[in-house]
Amino acid sequence: MSQEARCAVGVDVGGTRTSVAVVSEAGTIVCLRREVTPREAGAEATLPLICRLIRETLAGTDACPVGIGVGFGGPVDYGAQRVRRSNHAPGWSDTEPTRRLGKEFGLPAWLENDANAGGLAEVLYGAARGAQDALYVNVGTGVGGAVILRGRVHHGAHSNAGEFGHMVIDPLGPPCPCGRRGCVEVLCSGDAIGRMARESWAGEGPCPGGRGVGELAVAGDRWALDIVGRAAAEMGRAISIACNLWDPDVVVLGGGVPEMGEAYLAPVRESFARHAMDCIAHATPILGACLGYDAGVIGAAAVAMQASPQQ
Amino acid sequence: MSQEARCAVGVDVGGTRTSVAVVSEAGTIVCLRREVTPREAGAEATLPLICRLIRETLAGTDACPVGIGVGFGGPVDYGAQRVRRSNHAPGWSDTEPTRRLGKEFGLPAWLENDANAGGLAEVLYGAARGAQDALYVNVGTGVGGAVILRGRVHHGAHSNAGEFGHMVIDPLGPPCPCGRRGCVEVLCSGDAIGRMARESWAGEGPCPGGRGVGELAVAGDRWALDIVGRAAAEMGRAISIACNLWDPDVVVLGGGVPEMGEAYLAPVRESFARHAMDCIAHATPILGACLGYDAGVIGAAAVAMQASPQQ
Repeated sequence: MSQEARCAVGVDVGGTRTSVAVVSEAGTIVCLRREVTPREAGAEATLPLICRLIRETLAGTDACPVGIGVGFGGPVDYGAQRVRRSNHAPGWSDTEPTRRLGKEFGLPAWLENDANAGGLAEVLYGAARGAQDALYVNVGTGVGGAVILRGRVHHGAHSNAGEFGHMVIDPLGPPCPCGRRGCVEVLCSGDAIGRMARESWAGEGPCPGGRGVGELAVAGDRWALDIVGRAAAEMGRAISIACNLWDPDVVVLGGGVPEMGEAYLAPVRESFARHAMDCIAHATPILGACLGYDAGVIGAAAVAMQASPQQ
Repeated sequence: MSQEARCAVGVDVGGTRTSVAVVSEAGTIVCLRREVTPREAGAEATLPLICRLIRETLAGTDACPVGIGVGFGGPVDYGAQRVRRSNHAPGWSDTEPTRRLGKEFGLPAWLENDANAGGLAEVLYGAARGAQDALYVNVGTGVGGAVILRGRVHHGAHSNAGEFGHMVIDPLGPPCPCGRRGCVEVLCSGDAIGRMARESWAGEGPCPGGRGVGELAVAGDRWALDIVGRAAAEMGRAISIACNLWDPDVVVLGGGVPEMGEAYLAPVRESFARHAMDCIAHATPILGACLGYDAGVIGAAAVAMQASPQQ
């Protein structure tokens, strides 16, 4: 890769693994490092790891990145560049990791919520390539969302846009760790699929978890298809609410749950078509994401490239 | 008013009355005419009325409008400048009223949904003056909505944004004329308040309608306050869903129902605070509209002014 091509460093801090990549403006990963996140040790132990991984990826190319983008799995105040809260890894709340990274490497650094980064990557380089406005929903252990508007992350007035996972769509539904009832997350996530499985398990041996139910559904098991279908139906309705409100070009579903493919996507689409306004139901495709786990680093790098002025 | 000041003609085609005004760029009504809409006679009879009212308002000033904006009470395809469907008045579906008006007056003319026009007016000149992003909800006989983004109407990818009234927030709720169940409109509108009143009426004489229930609630009647409170609670939750998703600066409630004031707004705010993410609940004011019935013509004129290039 020539020194002339624009690129950026993308960092994805996940609950399980931390990834760092140099990514070109075309969305190609030039060099990638991925290691286990020292989860319990928090920001203090993870930041040195991130610095080492950045040094290693930069050593692997002759690229001059325009900046560093960091995707973080928790609510982020983009305006203040601060982690608001960390649910999946302790020791990150109220930290400003990009301040330290920026100083260390003499580069502008930007912090972004990981679902926002993933959604941006899918719009710029993935399943929704070419779209202007997209709703991205990450359905994994939890549910994250991103509102992409005119090809950029829409942060909203208070840096809270995209909190799709905590929209209360069934006020009498099961309790959510957030303190409310019937949030999208507690009805539709991988964890929710695991909970519904436990509630109806009548088989022998231990009940399969969310991932196991997904595998059974893909294999055609009726019990598993029923559970996945219920989570998918609520997801389709939640998407219909969002699309009635702001009418994006396209909806992209990323994360572990949609990786089951049609066993999940078909009932999502069926419920969406039943609940959305007709003119929206006919016009709005619901697509599976296509960048997989790499969406995080690619999107984080894209955040840095969009925030850095073109020379 | 001098010929130099920028102004536009605003037209508001309501189910009951049709209003036409010349409106200055500061949002001031220079001249207004309002007459009963020949409802059953459709576009063919109403367009000549609109033309006459426009001539009369223009005769009342020496203003040179930059264009004509028309607010219409039904789904509008803004991109195609066509009425999609008319629920409140027959004979408008698939018409292009601005084509005729533009020719008649030799001015550019723009068709817009009436809730979008009302929301724009409240953001530019009314309760949300100074806001960039606002959610506007019109709660009257039905429920309409508008997404205002950076001071302009957000139409979305297929001209369907703002369909707040048909978000399905309770899939087991009462049937809606749109064919689905548990839409915001069938749970929260003035008609919904009237229906809930009939369902629980145990008094003597005829049951009061939506407007009568509102008057009783303002006077402190507990039966009426309970009904209004239920409609308001669902509205507060619907607003929390929208705000979690795209996080506007402010929410404005217009139309007849919010005119009850605190008897309605207090339970809306209480439910919003209970269902929205904490960071959104604390940061997002819910305000009553302040332009009243005039929001329609003022907003329609603003649509024309925003669409017409500055000289």
